[in-house]
Amino acid sequence: MIADTTTQAPELDISHWFNTPTTLNLDMLRGRVVFIHAFQMLCPACVSHGLPQTQRVQRLFRDTDLQVIGLHTVFEHHAAMGPEALKAFIHEYRLTFPIGIDAASPDAAIPRTMHRYGMRGTPTTVIIGRDGTVRHHRFGIEDDLLVGAWLANAIAEPLPTTRQELPACSTDGCAIPDESLRRLETGIR
Amino acid sequence: MIADTTTQAPELDISHWFNTPTTLNLDMLRGRVVFIHAFQMLCPACVSHGLPQTQRVQRLFRDTDLQVIGLHTVFEHHAAMGPEALKAFIHEYRLTFPIGIDAASPDAAIPRTMHRYGMRGTPTTVIIGRDGTVRHHRFGIEDDLLVGAWLANAIAEPLPTTRQELPACSTDGCAIPDESLRRLETGIR
Amino acid sequence: MIADTTTQAPELDISHWFNTPTTLNLDMLRGRVVFIHAFQMLCPACVSHGLPQTQRVQRLFRDTDLQVIGLHTVFEHHAAMGPEALKAFIHEYRLTFPIGIDAASPDAAIPRTMHRYGMRGTPTTVIIGRDGTVRHHRFGIEDDLLVGAWLANAIAEPLPTTRQELPACSTDGCAIPDESLRRLETGIR
Amino acid sequence: MIADTTTQAPELDISHWFNTPTTLNLDMLRGRVVFIHAFQMLCPACVSHGLPQTQRVQRLFRDTDLQVIGLHTVFEHHAAMGPEALKAFIHEYRLTFPIGIDAASPDAAIPRTMHRYGMRGTPTTVIIGRDGTVRHHRFGIEDDLLVGAWLANAIAEPLPTTRQELPACSTDGCAIPDESLRRLETGIR
Repeated sequence: MIADTTTQAPELDISHWFNTPTTLNLDMLRGRVVFIHAFQMLCPACVSHGLPQTQRVQRLFRDTDLQVIGLHTVFEHHAAMGPEALKAFIHEYRLTFPIGIDAASPDAAIPRTMHRYGMRGTPTTVIIGRDGTVRHHRFGIEDDLLVGAWLANAIAEPLPTTRQELPACSTDGCAIPDESLRRLETGIR
Repeated sequence: MIADTTTQAPELDISHWFNTPTTLNLDMLRGRVVFIHAFQMLCPACVSHGLPQTQRVQRLFRDTDLQVIGLHTVFEHHAAMGPEALKAFIHEYRLTFPIGIDAASPDAAIPRTMHRYGMRGTPTTVIIGRDGTVRHHRFGIEDDLLVGAWLANAIAEPLPTTRQELPACSTDGCAIPDESLRRLETGIR
Repeated sequence: MIADTTTQAPELDISHWFNTPTTLNLDMLRGRVVFIHAFQMLCPACVSHGLPQTQRVQRLFRDTDLQVIGLHTVFEHHAAMGPEALKAFIHEYRLTFPIGIDAASPDAAIPRTMHRYGMRGTPTTVIIGRDGTVRHHRFGIEDDLLVGAWLANAIAEPLPTTRQELPACSTDGCAIPDESLRRLETGIR
Repeated sequence: MIADTTTQAPELDISHWFNTPTTLNLDMLRGRVVFIHAFQMLCPACVSHGLPQTQRVQRLFRDTDLQVIGLHTVFEHHAAMGPEALKAFIHEYRLTFPIGIDAASPDAAIPRTMHRYGMRGTPTTVIIGRDGTVRHHRFGIEDDLLVGAWLANAIAEPLPTTRQELPACSTDGCAIPDESLRRLETGIR
């Protein structure tokens, strides 16, 4: 596991969301673990391995507070993988987790979030801890046993408690975040 | 095996070809066996089963005179599966057999060749005998053992020899077609 | 395909049969195509590939007159793969085709049929034509597409018709073998 | 996850060990996490799923202090699955983790450890925590993602520190067990 607990995960830059009623960002997810699968709809290893794995993560960790996000990081064949094409792809492959289109950059083939994270290609897996730091970031196919272990470790961590990290702070003090969102690791089944 | 040896296979209507220096049609292929895999690039069963199977057919029957053809029969999500998208798909999935785009119909979602054959969806497998008749036509995933058997049966058949079917006929008689095109079934290895 | 149409297939030497009410031998099967899968119950490639493939052949060619035979050719770990162990194995793996134990040789590790055929190991696939000659004989995992093609070719061959080959000959003449046993290749479905 | 943190795992009763220079028991493993895969060499689901999964666990968690144990719980076909047969099986399938033969019971088909744990059949997965309690016990095929998560949770737990559980306690107090045995969860890679 590549664990750099000092690096805050860069914010997502998403031009369009699918499978979610509201937009998502890492700031609002602070306190929860986030699993990001960066893919392209025409990337064979993503279609055969990464996306089915992400769907399994979504299903098997549904009783935890893990947030699964698909990130469509198009860096080639842009004309073939636009929003309309991705919408059809999501429909045909019955993908149910939230998927965001990584915002295109006006002057580069690599989209913005992909660039911020320094991703090398697709598929790439990123796991972000409750404190917003990157716990795992790797290009290529990952073994389910390891993904399960990394997620369990991140989910088992305590919530960050310092004042400045809590979104609910006011001049009157800091409210404890809603613990109901965070199920125990025994919720994994 | 669905064998209707009285039905001549309808001609293909192709708007664009990939992976072939020349256009193809059934008329010019008369005398050879043709394996057609009708697919859509966003059809999951085509991507996971049909196209890899077609690629295996292309490779394992390369020493026979079998002609493998991929037929892109887009009947839904037309905007997502245009020529540009298919080109990227063929490149990313390393498909090497000739692939034709079934010509769109101006007034129907179903493209022309698909309509002529009465195909029910994708994937669909069609095998055409040396005499131009449809030997197999079925919607869904096929077992490799059966595909191998159907192809061997069709390849083993003698060339059609009636005067009107042979392209090399003249007032002096009918020349036997070049047998070099037709390898023996022992060519399968 | 290794086709040596001059080599008569050596007779089987079987010490015990499973899954068949009567013993089998190649002489009595003359006129039919025979598919032999030589395996060992502790051979990983046989368990993961060869035996499931043989089971598929048994199921998919059930409407032809193909005879499927499993041949347990134990040439190592003899104590671990005796008749009692094989019986349990056949039960647990739900194998339904006839399986014969290749007769042990008193002075060699390699059993008798395996020796007669010159097999190099397990899994080995042998296909015998209607005339009793070996049409295919190869060590290792085989592709379903090719097995299907080889079987279809062998099944499509005409019955041998010479006097001396027919088992039903008497001083009065030779009766034509029961054609009802031989279904057309279109029986493959 | 079935977590019954009050149930101490019953001790193993092993008649013979493979792949380990010394015998193993849970008492000596106290303080470490133990992954037990109960199998039979003629159980198809064990051969196709359970044993390959156990081999992956052995490989992917090699930098933690996890102890992987295969438990050969023969409750049927006893004659076919004796020590000699198991030895050949382990050799042919290239299994590298310690495997113990569950001691046969003189008056029952079910062997002793299997009986003590109340196992329902094979494959069965048992995970034992650092404190010697059963953290997971289930019959059937398990998903790699979940096995990875359960193991990471158990590995992340602190060593038991109560006086009576520690072997290094004296009248002067209790020495902290050698932490070198317990690698951090970041050792999972």
